[in-house]
Amino acid sequence: MMYVKGVGMTKFGVHVKSSQELCYDAAMEAMDDAGISPDRIDAVVVSRGDCATDGERQRLFPSVISSILGREGIPMVQVMAACAGGGAAMWDAVHSGHDTVLVLGVEKLTPGTTAVVTDDLMMAAESVYEQREGLNFPAQNALIAQQYMRRYGVSMGDLSLVALKNHENANLNPKARFYGKKVTLDMIKKSPIICSPLRLFDCSASVDGAAAVIITKEKTDVGIIGSALCADRLPAFESPDMTTWASTRIAAGEAYRQAGISPEDLDCVELHDAFTPVELMSYEDLGLCGKGEAKKLIRKGRTKLNGDIPVNSSGGLKAKGHPVSATGVSQIYEMTKQLRGQAEKRQVDGARIGIAHNVGGAGSTATVHVLRKGG
Amino acid sequence: MMYVKGVGMTKFGVHVKSSQELCYDAAMEAMDDAGISPDRIDAVVVSRGDCATDGERQRLFPSVISSILGREGIPMVQVMAACAGGGAAMWDAVHSGHDTVLVLGVEKLTPGTTAVVTDDLMMAAESVYEQREGLNFPAQNALIAQQYMRRYGVSMGDLSLVALKNHENANLNPKARFYGKKVTLDMIKKSPIICSPLRLFDCSASVDGAAAVIITKEKTDVGIIGSALCADRLPAFESPDMTTWASTRIAAGEAYRQAGISPEDLDCVELHDAFTPVELMSYEDLGLCGKGEAKKLIRKGRTKLNGDIPVNSSGGLKAKGHPVSATGVSQIYEMTKQLRGQAEKRQVDGARIGIAHNVGGAGSTATVHVLRKGG
Repeated sequence: MMYVKGVGMTKFGVHVKSSQELCYDAAMEAMDDAGISPDRIDAVVVSRGDCATDGERQRLFPSVISSILGREGIPMVQVMAACAGGGAAMWDAVHSGHDTVLVLGVEKLTPGTTAVVTDDLMMAAESVYEQREGLNFPAQNALIAQQYMRRYGVSMGDLSLVALKNHENANLNPKARFYGKKVTLDMIKKSPIICSPLRLFDCSASVDGAAAVIITKEKTDVGIIGSALCADRLPAFESPDMTTWASTRIAAGEAYRQAGISPEDLDCVELHDAFTPVELMSYEDLGLCGKGEAKKLIRKGRTKLNGDIPVNSSGGLKAKGHPVSATGVSQIYEMTKQLRGQAEKRQVDGARIGIAHNVGGAGSTATVHVLRKGG
Repeated sequence: MMYVKGVGMTKFGVHVKSSQELCYDAAMEAMDDAGISPDRIDAVVVSRGDCATDGERQRLFPSVISSILGREGIPMVQVMAACAGGGAAMWDAVHSGHDTVLVLGVEKLTPGTTAVVTDDLMMAAESVYEQREGLNFPAQNALIAQQYMRRYGVSMGDLSLVALKNHENANLNPKARFYGKKVTLDMIKKSPIICSPLRLFDCSASVDGAAAVIITKEKTDVGIIGSALCADRLPAFESPDMTTWASTRIAAGEAYRQAGISPEDLDCVELHDAFTPVELMSYEDLGLCGKGEAKKLIRKGRTKLNGDIPVNSSGGLKAKGHPVSATGVSQIYEMTKQLRGQAEKRQVDGARIGIAHNVGGAGSTATVHVLRKGG
């Protein structure tokens, strides 16, 4: 079994620094937190999109990490899974068999223009049918939202409540993109349509950032009691039902089985709210409620910070920001802070067991990690 | 311990098929060879350069594999390490803990023009100093060759002997790019200079291709008794001595230690001859001879197919071809065929123990796998 020994992350937002500089900052914070130096690391797993939109032109990124840490002669690999890259790196590290592993996720999306970033991210969609039809991820998730809302009676107001909650949480998280930004329900409801029914505030924010986690076989105060990754087919049109993601259901089931828990045991959840309807669908796919019942959770405020099952205390992809491959690692950062009781103004009372849920594509790859306080 | 249950590969060369079609062909051949169907696979590790030069625009490749195999609900990840991607995927799979893993490597370099492919591959070099100085990989390896040849008295004729040997072997391998092409020492010595001292025939061939290996915990006739990956710093200028690659030495040392063997026990070797001087340096770094003694091995013909330690019976990167991420997996294919006694006209007599050695960058990442006949 593996444990979390140290965590670090940059602020998510617009950075002048390169992705290797962001990695350095996150890794050094994690090492300080763990109380170790780079020579104690046995292996590195790093995730980073390889078509960096800012023209960094830097592949073979594990050796970049070797250079910046001054740590050579050990195994280092790069794992990719589009927006689930961070979760996949974490999963790979947990199963690697090494004693002390540094897991890194990083993405540098600025100063690429919106059009360049959209086009770049779109390459994670199916190339022949989806991309050529213009089915970028806002469009794919809009189609999913239409089906989900119609079938289960979910309203635009329900989506707005998700955005509002996550912005409220981000406003308590100094590392979030929208820390310090007061967002009201009125602002959300009046925001421009991106792809019907999704408005601007229904979409996560493309940002720069890096996150780092050091995991060890040595017991610490946070144990990783479940770690699962599940791949599904790539195109959404191959799915029999677009309102549920098999990859999330299977990964969650496997992670809960490893952990010996059921969803009722969860005290807090970081999940992949790339778009607000995905947060609601994920309540159901992760087993927080039955199918079609997510709207009740959000309406009753049960997933707010003071609710009985707080979701995305960090602000989530929506308002903390979504630097693609860094997201999954930053979820482990947040969960570790919560279980240690170090989450300050956004602390979830009595957090003992939590999960991190990361998705690549429109449900194509999902990872679920279960963390427990006290190891 | 893991074993090889099945292997497959496409012919290396120019293909009209897409990288997913090449993967399908290689994977199906491996499954036929293993006598299993896709539903027996527990996990997939795939390596593929993500900036495919042919404009395939297809990331999140594990889910592409899920689609083409009709196999979903299991872990699938993508591992990248530039030219060592295949070896890194193999290493990741061996250490993954799964019972039956499909390892895939694929690259599609045509119909990209030479300029596009060169520019694309160059991104594995260091971005600020190396790339902007025009230090693409032929140039980097030319600098290394100059130092190596001067220091150890290696001649252009020695390099030509490496090319000749590997072309002779490829001429016996129907899956090699240059199968059926008769190459003479005169052709090699009169070929144009690419980057002094390297001539055309000192450089490996950029081709399309895919290779697949199925590994299992179940005992088969070929055991994987050593598996090591070592990362070093990225830029060559950070290395104290460019005529030896620490990553190869460390990975080989670790793999031999796991296997309980020494280099004298090896019957055959597939190594990373991206450029002919790298084959010679690798004889030394892999321990086949002492430092500076590689020239004696090649002059005496000891690494030829009928020598005492045959190297690159497949034709190597030089003449089988080098489809980047597929190369490391194809080395396991060749070694498995040799140990099973199925290598036909290029069979190494009495092959019992062999290694596969794969490198990314100019020594930035190296993998070494040790395979043994009889498991």
